Amino acid sequence: MSPRKSAAEARSTRRRIIDRGIAIASVEGLEGLTIGRLATDLGMSKAGILGHFGTKETLQLAVLEGASAVFVHSVWHPAEDAPPGLPRLRALCEAWIGYLEHERAVFPGGCLFTTASVEFDARGGRVRDAVARLSRVWRRRLAAEVRQAVAAGDLPAGTDPEQVTYELVGCYLALNQELQLLADPEAPARTRRALDRLLAPDAPVHPR
Amino acid sequence: MSPRKSAAEARSTRRRIIDRGIAIASVEGLEGLTIGRLATDLGMSKAGILGHFGTKETLQLAVLEGASAVFVHSVWHPAEDAPPGLPRLRALCEAWIGYLEHERAVFPGGCLFTTASVEFDARGGRVRDAVARLSRVWRRRLAAEVRQAVAAGDLPAGTDPEQVTYELVGCYLALNQELQLLADPEAPARTRRALDRLLAPDAPVHPR
Repeated sequence: MSPRKSAAEARSTRRRIIDRGIAIASVEGLEGLTIGRLATDLGMSKAGILGHFGTKETLQLAVLEGASAVFVHSVWHPAEDAPPGLPRLRALCEAWIGYLEHERAVFPGGCLFTTASVEFDARGGRVRDAVARLSRVWRRRLAAEVRQAVAAGDLPAGTDPEQVTYELVGCYLALNQELQLLADPEAPARTRRALDRLLAPDAPVHPR
Repeated sequence: MSPRKSAAEARSTRRRIIDRGIAIASVEGLEGLTIGRLATDLGMSKAGILGHFGTKETLQLAVLEGASAVFVHSVWHPAEDAPPGLPRLRALCEAWIGYLEHERAVFPGGCLFTTASVEFDARGGRVRDAVARLSRVWRRRLAAEVRQAVAAGDLPAGTDPEQVTYELVGCYLALNQELQLLADPEAPARTRRALDRLLAPDAPVHPR
């Protein structure tokens, strides 16, 4: 086998492990993502899995990174070409609803970040730090979009972007719970109604 | 030992197991609540623990029931004597903030229901059913309070109680995440601002 082909095959195997890892972790949590389970699912040896990642923690971090790429692809990419301001913010919010409604194709157990944030919030360590970092990055992205909508005059002057971001995050945590735990088909419509009120051009000012 | 004393001791031991189980499950999840861990923590034999509960699932259900009693004691009891309508709804919301801020005394890993709802939402079984049932009971309680506030004229006529409940749940899921994962001390103030807007007497009507 040529070295080039071998490197390509290693990348492809790594990719297969991460994809399967995302599916398992979304149901069982990142702690439930065992090397043994992955090896069985993929018909590989445990040593073969560990050869790609070294430790379970490195594997958990790679799965989290892979899930982040799926989120960016599903939520950010469909919206990034919309005009900055409220149109892009609304496009992001709509793609986010779609991600939570249809994510089961990718994350059979629901949004991996919500699961991981609850799983690791009471622990220390690199996985917790990575989950918190990704949450902060997404909040900053949302707050920047809200800020642009205010600058464009699409939202009232004096709006607090961090407050709107906080309430947006709450809407989506509720949507995830209603869909995953309670299987309520009304939940996406409820989310859109909450957004209509939160992002109305004449919404009451969100005080700082 | 008299039979009466023995029954009282059995209740007390059961109580100790449940209290310790709540603390462990809030950090490790209900699946991380192993008989072995409980036995070590309490200086009991595994058989001694199993004698009280029979199976791990029965133990998980008893711990969930125990956590529910803590929630009712912390959130419902402080508010139940407030006048029905907006005063009682606001009292409930304030007690709920306090519960999430100070719960670490009881739940070292944060709200057990949030953890359990994410842990079990992709699985079947009696524990998942119990978590979903408790979530529905709490949502119905909140919606009833909103309905009373509308009937009392404290919230606009035409308000959709289920919509307000959905948004309230979102606020608190966000509060839990901000406190537990991101350790943001601003989060309770953000929650109060969101409530001021959501429960304002002249809030825009929440359409059905």
